[in-house]
Amino acid sequence: MIVALGGGIGASKLLLGICQVIDPSELTVIVNTADDVVLHGLTICPDLDTVAYTLAGMADRERGWGIEGDSFNALSWLDRYGREAWFNLGDRDLATHLHRTALLRQGLTLAEVTDRIRRSLGIRTHILPMTNQRVSTIVLTDQGPRPFQEYLVRDGARHAVRGVRLEGVERSQPAPGVLEAIEAAEGIIICPSNPIISVGPILAVPGIRRALKMTEAPIVAISPVVGGRSLKGPTDRFLAGLGHEVSALSVARLYQDLLDLFIVDRSDSELLPAIEALPVKAFTADTVMQNLEAKVSLAKETLSSLASL
Amino acid sequence: MIVALGGGIGASKLLLGICQVIDPSELTVIVNTADDVVLHGLTICPDLDTVAYTLAGMADRERGWGIEGDSFNALSWLDRYGREAWFNLGDRDLATHLHRTALLRQGLTLAEVTDRIRRSLGIRTHILPMTNQRVSTIVLTDQGPRPFQEYLVRDGARHAVRGVRLEGVERSQPAPGVLEAIEAAEGIIICPSNPIISVGPILAVPGIRRALKMTEAPIVAISPVVGGRSLKGPTDRFLAGLGHEVSALSVARLYQDLLDLFIVDRSDSELLPAIEALPVKAFTADTVMQNLEAKVSLAKETLSSLASL
Repeated sequence: MIVALGGGIGASKLLLGICQVIDPSELTVIVNTADDVVLHGLTICPDLDTVAYTLAGMADRERGWGIEGDSFNALSWLDRYGREAWFNLGDRDLATHLHRTALLRQGLTLAEVTDRIRRSLGIRTHILPMTNQRVSTIVLTDQGPRPFQEYLVRDGARHAVRGVRLEGVERSQPAPGVLEAIEAAEGIIICPSNPIISVGPILAVPGIRRALKMTEAPIVAISPVVGGRSLKGPTDRFLAGLGHEVSALSVARLYQDLLDLFIVDRSDSELLPAIEALPVKAFTADTVMQNLEAKVSLAKETLSSLASL
Repeated sequence: MIVALGGGIGASKLLLGICQVIDPSELTVIVNTADDVVLHGLTICPDLDTVAYTLAGMADRERGWGIEGDSFNALSWLDRYGREAWFNLGDRDLATHLHRTALLRQGLTLAEVTDRIRRSLGIRTHILPMTNQRVSTIVLTDQGPRPFQEYLVRDGARHAVRGVRLEGVERSQPAPGVLEAIEAAEGIIICPSNPIISVGPILAVPGIRRALKMTEAPIVAISPVVGGRSLKGPTDRFLAGLGHEVSALSVARLYQDLLDLFIVDRSDSELLPAIEALPVKAFTADTVMQNLEAKVSLAKETLSSLASL
């Protein structure tokens, strides 16, 4: 059993590759939920949905979010009613949020709802939210605190990041199955996701970081920073905003108490000595997953590196 | 000020005609809400929506419900999630239900929400739900009791009707503005809607029937039954199921304590003597509103009959 931690596009790309290499049911993904947002009365879980839609083969590849070929007719009418329409909601995607919200109101936990959705979509990989409780990433910007989606989507990530607060994280608990999956894992992968706002919240749920430190399973991370830039999303701004150098080395530092191995892009090979000096064992690979072949290739290297440990 | 009571397609057709004859802002419509249903966590008000979409000029004329040119992508995905998909919900229509439900959860009343929606859609006619409280039409069928939409849409109105129960109606109150509109009206129109399940619930809200009896304004009704059949919907089955003959005469009997005037279709002229004998003053008109011209024509005849009283 392989366990992966992450959220968002970078993680989903790698997960898609992993599912080509091993039996998808042998993979458990622990997903960030601190980006979740309630809009129009609906509980929206962008990272959970990106992972599910990607693994179901229905993610929109162009946009990087939502369902391929989706329409946006409900959204245009929500706008007509004067509702906040800055958060893109496709019509098919809306069905996911309606279903999830209705089940949560019936009393199901987010983990139970997530499992129902992945079964309905024919996904064999286990998908676990990091927690069943509400945790919210608040971005502390030069314009004041902003809930994550407002910072990212509504305000277009244009305000300078000064810090991050994870509201509710102290009171949260790992969702059922999370600690068990980590304990039972043969190998653990920290996906190339934003270390501050995607992997960070997962590690901040009380008990998860400790379980990762305690497990005997090898842990490998892949840097989301390549050549001093984040491939996708505002990782660079978060690293810089929190006083870190924008480089794979900073990512290695953030995870160094957990890692057995760190994978950086070939273009960052000059960072290897500094990473090894942390000390974190590291190697290079092609981490820019432009197509399925590249995803499978990185997945193979990642999995075989775990097997070698 | 003209007040109209009704719900559904027949009412909406006449209302569209009336708005061509008088200033739409001089019309107040009191709408049945006993057909309302909660599905997928959304509060859906079919009669309020049919009236609003029709008056906004965006109703789908072919289907008789929903918004013209709407798509059904969310619904097909709700089905994929194993949710009840028998109730048609267009994507644009869904935005109305999302908006309404979110506002109700914020603490607005149904009347306040309805007014916001009609303003957003640019409707100048006042639209009032009969009540802000939940009233539910339960159809007593030979297969047991069925909430109205389940009887009509899910089960295709195929079970024999034995009776009707209006759940919650005793505890309901007229929505703010309803009694005031009736008191201030210069004329009142009971639309060609189902007398049992569209107009019936409005008249059953404590205080409304009494206000109609007390008002000095003339009251006219148009028969939804033409030639012993309902033009649209299951009016005939409800009349028969409750032991009434399926004819305009039965409709006149149901309203006879309220009416100053009753309009039947020209094809039903042989019923005039029996209706006049109730005694209810009656006359014939072309009540089948196939096109806008016919709607306007019936609206003109209805309004001038009120003016003559």
